[in-house]
Amino acid sequence: MNELTMNLKVDSKVPLYEQIYRYIKSDIQSGRIPYGEKLPSTRALSRHLEVSRSTVELAYEQLLSEGYVEAEPCRGFFVAQIDELYHIGQEKVRVPEKKEEEKTYRYDFTPNGVDLKSFPYHVWRKLSKEILMDDRTELFRSGDSQGEYGFRSAVCSYLYQARGVDCLPEQVIIGAGSDYILMLLSMILGGGLRIGFEDPTYKQAYRMMTGLSYETVPIGLDKNGIMVSGLRTSGADIAYVTPSHQYPTGIVMPMKRRMELLLWAHEEERRYIIEDDYDSEFRYKGKPIPALKSYDRNDRVIYLGTFSKSIAPAIRLSYMVLPKQLIWKYQERSSFIQSTVSKVDQLIVQRFIEDGYYERHLNKTRAMYKSRHDMLIEELKSHMDMCSISGEHAGVHLLLTFRDGRSEEELVKAAEAAGIRVYGMSAYRIRKTEKKEATILLGYANLTERQIREAVELLAQCWKK
Amino acid sequence: MNELTMNLKVDSKVPLYEQIYRYIKSDIQSGRIPYGEKLPSTRALSRHLEVSRSTVELAYEQLLSEGYVEAEPCRGFFVAQIDELYHIGQEKVRVPEKKEEEKTYRYDFTPNGVDLKSFPYHVWRKLSKEILMDDRTELFRSGDSQGEYGFRSAVCSYLYQARGVDCLPEQVIIGAGSDYILMLLSMILGGGLRIGFEDPTYKQAYRMMTGLSYETVPIGLDKNGIMVSGLRTSGADIAYVTPSHQYPTGIVMPMKRRMELLLWAHEEERRYIIEDDYDSEFRYKGKPIPALKSYDRNDRVIYLGTFSKSIAPAIRLSYMVLPKQLIWKYQERSSFIQSTVSKVDQLIVQRFIEDGYYERHLNKTRAMYKSRHDMLIEELKSHMDMCSISGEHAGVHLLLTFRDGRSEEELVKAAEAAGIRVYGMSAYRIRKTEKKEATILLGYANLTERQIREAVELLAQCWKK
Repeated sequence: MNELTMNLKVDSKVPLYEQIYRYIKSDIQSGRIPYGEKLPSTRALSRHLEVSRSTVELAYEQLLSEGYVEAEPCRGFFVAQIDELYHIGQEKVRVPEKKEEEKTYRYDFTPNGVDLKSFPYHVWRKLSKEILMDDRTELFRSGDSQGEYGFRSAVCSYLYQARGVDCLPEQVIIGAGSDYILMLLSMILGGGLRIGFEDPTYKQAYRMMTGLSYETVPIGLDKNGIMVSGLRTSGADIAYVTPSHQYPTGIVMPMKRRMELLLWAHEEERRYIIEDDYDSEFRYKGKPIPALKSYDRNDRVIYLGTFSKSIAPAIRLSYMVLPKQLIWKYQERSSFIQSTVSKVDQLIVQRFIEDGYYERHLNKTRAMYKSRHDMLIEELKSHMDMCSISGEHAGVHLLLTFRDGRSEEELVKAAEAAGIRVYGMSAYRIRKTEKKEATILLGYANLTERQIREAVELLAQCWKK
Repeated sequence: MNELTMNLKVDSKVPLYEQIYRYIKSDIQSGRIPYGEKLPSTRALSRHLEVSRSTVELAYEQLLSEGYVEAEPCRGFFVAQIDELYHIGQEKVRVPEKKEEEKTYRYDFTPNGVDLKSFPYHVWRKLSKEILMDDRTELFRSGDSQGEYGFRSAVCSYLYQARGVDCLPEQVIIGAGSDYILMLLSMILGGGLRIGFEDPTYKQAYRMMTGLSYETVPIGLDKNGIMVSGLRTSGADIAYVTPSHQYPTGIVMPMKRRMELLLWAHEEERRYIIEDDYDSEFRYKGKPIPALKSYDRNDRVIYLGTFSKSIAPAIRLSYMVLPKQLIWKYQERSSFIQSTVSKVDQLIVQRFIEDGYYERHLNKTRAMYKSRHDMLIEELKSHMDMCSISGEHAGVHLLLTFRDGRSEEELVKAAEAAGIRVYGMSAYRIRKTEKKEATILLGYANLTERQIREAVELLAQCWKK
């Protein structure tokens, strides 16, 4: 090939060399310049196009580095062989469409609500600003993969004071949300384990563990929580439990059951208990129930905590406390994995805890949730005699049980027709087969006292027999 | 039991009810009050201790809710059975000690360096402040599990302009760092797959995939990158590659090899290519090489990108672009997993991209790295005739190859003695058995031009034969 004719635009924003490169590339792609063809010499082409030789050289170099042409010493540039694949048409694959907009309700009794109006924006902004003014370079350097040491220490102090858990910062691992923490834990524990879940349970964790290819088995509850006999016959290696406030039934596991559970874990080297202490911050009667981990003398409990529930869902900050034996496995198997939480966020929450803002925030939200809790109970007692209340005094939801033969579905639908969203217990059950009495969850964190009053009155009307 | 004597401190910070609760709890734990014993009635105890009856009731309720006592209707409170386990002593398990401080070097040619002095603190602070002033409640509400739509759109625009990748926001998934992205990908792909890795390779990804229980196989390189014939005989389902700039050899995969690789993936339904485009932003000669994904007409390439390398390591923000078929699997298997990146961080980076700061930042760092790159090459050429240079023109490191019989270890040790840290290629190889010529990696992102000049002079002296 001796000539290549192209219309170069001198006034284009695209540099001349790039125009030449694009032109030749497209001719090679389309097959107009075939495999093996020699390109004109840089001298010849520069003369032909009336551009500088270095412009053509630049274009050829780009074609060379992308592999469209090959250079043969002393002979020049030749078109490389581009496989046929280039010309295969693109398969049409549909992308899933956005899920349709969810129905809107006048009142939503979601059990996963968090009151965001009480979020301390002002403090958060202040801390964020101060931290970004401080450290500078250090702040954006790669951090400790386990989480910043100072932040882990603050978590330890908090756990000791608030949950009775005595642990070292070396045992704490920080991660961006509880889902991630479970992924990391699965890498530490390894595969091939059987995990016993309370039934009903916190479905997000159940889905995670199933998604991580663990065999999961449902374990029944009695009035004291997970049945250790059931755990024993199930052959489970790990028990995933919520002893401070069983989710969603609200059962507080009594001391005796706790001890039985710890004994079960102590019996075999491979057994561990995962204690998900998801909403221990909210208890409205007496002192907080200490965590199971605080009685864990033989170090069999993996403790999970989160700030997403107690501060705000968008704060992606959770942690686990590992038994000392598992710290060795973590070091060996997973400590190379970089932290998923930015240093900035860790420092903000550290200051938030250390400067006392966290305690104040918890006291404020606890008082607010308590008023909503009391209001809900009062309203339910005066308007609803068709059901019984349970799981109250803690957390941010309670349960209504109907023994009049109506199904959960009926009750949920009736509420929906009145613009109220309530949640049936069956969504939290692993085994769907058993016929149970109808149980409805009512969460109150997201509703004002006035909304609670209005909604309960409406519910009483639409649930009247 | 009719009496319980305890010294209550009226002036203590601990409330009276809690003092009573603690006293009885400790007596139950120690066995001083045995199982089955009846506690004094609240009336009797309140009279005995001279406190109000509600104080005693509060203490009993706490003991009840923690399960230390049981209530029998009309009969009173009885000590519950606490298992023996409570008295088993704690096993002593050592916690791994902090790793000893790493040796300090005068000059560190790390290939993973990032110049943090050029980090745009001012802009970052400004955006962070503006975003925290804005949205308020919305900002701290739970976000889209795939990442915020606006941010994903900004990533798409960037990828289209800078990398030639044409994708929809629906295909993009945001995550806190590349390690997390691989964890998530493993849940989407499922287990039981064989992954072919370039050898030498990016060891962090190799360790992740091994840690995630995948079978991994090393695939040899020739001058054009990963050998597709090797991939074919290995029986790999997935190829993990760095086509724009092979890590660590710096090979740019030419068009023909790219097409062969895409053809390999097209041959079988289960095959995918993972393209890790880790440092494509830095190229000092000609235009950037388009991503392999930009030629991916049959949608077989999973594209990985990150802002941790191009902005700062502490920005935990990476993403993947999924082929459309895998979006369906993601929806089905993993879309319930909550995002690991806070909305605030996503919004900051979105604004950083959309307002043109990212492009300016890249131009600035690119120019700076180019000067360092040029300085390093110039210095090497004038001082070191004992080795040959390769892998230059892109990324933030280059390679020196020694064919004089000296081992990598010898060269690394000699540099270390002069206070200079350099990196032997063998650390990046999967197969350790083969005897190769000594290759040393020199990264320059972290060193000033002056430091480069000084360090190369020192290196030339200590490596002189």
